[in-house]
Amino acid sequence: MSNLGEFELIARLSPFLASAGDDLVVGHGDDAAVIDLDGRGVCLAVDVLVDEVHFRRDLSSMADVGWKAVAVNVSDMAAMGARPTVAVVGLCRPPSLDAAAVEQLYEGMSEACREWGLRLVGGDTVAAQALAVSVTVLGDVQPDAAVRRSGARPGDRIVVVGELGGASAALAQLRAGVDADERLLQAHRRPVARVDAGAALAAAGATAMIDVSDGFGADLLHVCEASGVAAVVDAERLPAAAGVHEAARALDVDPMVFVAGGGDDYALVATVAADGVPAAEAAGAVEVGEVIQGSPAATLRLPDGSTRDLAGMGWDHYRQEGP
Amino acid sequence: MSNLGEFELIARLSPFLASAGDDLVVGHGDDAAVIDLDGRGVCLAVDVLVDEVHFRRDLSSMADVGWKAVAVNVSDMAAMGARPTVAVVGLCRPPSLDAAAVEQLYEGMSEACREWGLRLVGGDTVAAQALAVSVTVLGDVQPDAAVRRSGARPGDRIVVVGELGGASAALAQLRAGVDADERLLQAHRRPVARVDAGAALAAAGATAMIDVSDGFGADLLHVCEASGVAAVVDAERLPAAAGVHEAARALDVDPMVFVAGGGDDYALVATVAADGVPAAEAAGAVEVGEVIQGSPAATLRLPDGSTRDLAGMGWDHYRQEGP
Repeated sequence: MSNLGEFELIARLSPFLASAGDDLVVGHGDDAAVIDLDGRGVCLAVDVLVDEVHFRRDLSSMADVGWKAVAVNVSDMAAMGARPTVAVVGLCRPPSLDAAAVEQLYEGMSEACREWGLRLVGGDTVAAQALAVSVTVLGDVQPDAAVRRSGARPGDRIVVVGELGGASAALAQLRAGVDADERLLQAHRRPVARVDAGAALAAAGATAMIDVSDGFGADLLHVCEASGVAAVVDAERLPAAAGVHEAARALDVDPMVFVAGGGDDYALVATVAADGVPAAEAAGAVEVGEVIQGSPAATLRLPDGSTRDLAGMGWDHYRQEGP
Repeated sequence: MSNLGEFELIARLSPFLASAGDDLVVGHGDDAAVIDLDGRGVCLAVDVLVDEVHFRRDLSSMADVGWKAVAVNVSDMAAMGARPTVAVVGLCRPPSLDAAAVEQLYEGMSEACREWGLRLVGGDTVAAQALAVSVTVLGDVQPDAAVRRSGARPGDRIVVVGELGGASAALAQLRAGVDADERLLQAHRRPVARVDAGAALAAAGATAMIDVSDGFGADLLHVCEASGVAAVVDAERLPAAAGVHEAARALDVDPMVFVAGGGDDYALVATVAADGVPAAEAAGAVEVGEVIQGSPAATLRLPDGSTRDLAGMGWDHYRQEGP
């Protein structure tokens, strides 16, 4: 299913999903939902990782898969400015996955839980034909402090915490039949959620925030669409993961395909008022562009002054055309 | 994987799961976990339904599957004495499941959400080889009022709310090649969660509670093991679903195979002090037996005074031997 198909499907399903109202501070369509329980905000997200779709068992150990299944959900918490508290796991277990492999998966989930201070409190393991791991994470956030995708305003600066392009560059290397750079492969195997940075950006007055799962450009465009604004980003300011530029050169590919279009990065992209930039930088963010008035669009400004539409630079697009 | 295999696996995974302590009022190993947030209890459960394992697409519509995916989790809330509030869904979508079928699945989830007053607030839909639906439900319960599996005491009465044996009798009819009784098939397709009864049983002082997913006997044994007690139940008092006795006669099978061993019933089994029985009955419960001192064991007392060990009457056992 192409990304376009996914987004169309999401639109068709939205009538079945609750929008914000009453105690539901953030409804569907953001990184996570937020419920107000007498002033305590409960942040809630689910992500499913599927064998051969989100990981390959010859590239990732079962512990890597467990780590990633937790990390991608923790990253959703981070993107709301929330801190993860507990997780539950639903595991579809094929006959090929023996008890030792399931233990390794749980060990990886436990490592990620220790890393970000949450606890695994339950789960359901069921027989299935194919391996899939569904993790739900709860987080803690002050209800009025949760950062949505919809608050970006013209004049805000766009900042990024984390590195871009690593995971997709590693997969492109493998697809091209060359040895993958271990640093890049590690970005695919063990993504890092930016919980402290997310909380710091929320405290710095972030007006909108999202984590990079579909790709920097695609996710920035989600913010633009939710906020009703446009964005312009400088290519040379985007923080590429170490090894991405070398990989792109060797593959004879524009590095922006990975950096701006790659996805699976779990960096945070936030918008802040200009006077919030120093606090964002203190949280590890780099400034990469600005929010402007206009129809929702995300534009990449190249060093020579030319521009490119970031909407066309998604990883799926790249995958269809091949390197 | 046999039930025994599942239970062994669960035991091997328990070191990775958090036990109760501090703000975690109920940890892993119960129907749901409960977290104390400044006096508000958040109850949390996940269940996964897999195509060809938990449902068949020629027997259940996609709306039925959606209903059931929510209902089985709501039933976990009911078994804690909690009320469901919100749900998120992780959907593994095979190419054979078109957008209209996904909408039907969501329509069924929405129907169940309306039935029990919760809201679907988000989800993740991913491409996959096989259809699986992972639903996580949150519930609301006073932290000190959550009913665990571990509080049953000798002298307590055992009560049941709901009907037993319907789903397994329908599947046995189909397996035997006879037309399934529609009433029984409906129990398989559209299980009913007992939220009001669960809350009423909690208020009536239930000392332990569980919902019947593995089978009445197997689930009662879970309570006995968690509580360190034994249980004796009268076969003739167990509330069989309408049509189960006729189905058993026609198949020449002991009806207790379905009623006590069937599973997938989502009735509630609770233990209450003798003086709590009237309140339990007012909540729709029937008294079926009593808790006694002894090593964990669940015994079925037959009308002729003979007894049978309920541990041997699970649906899986039946399935292996055939009718």
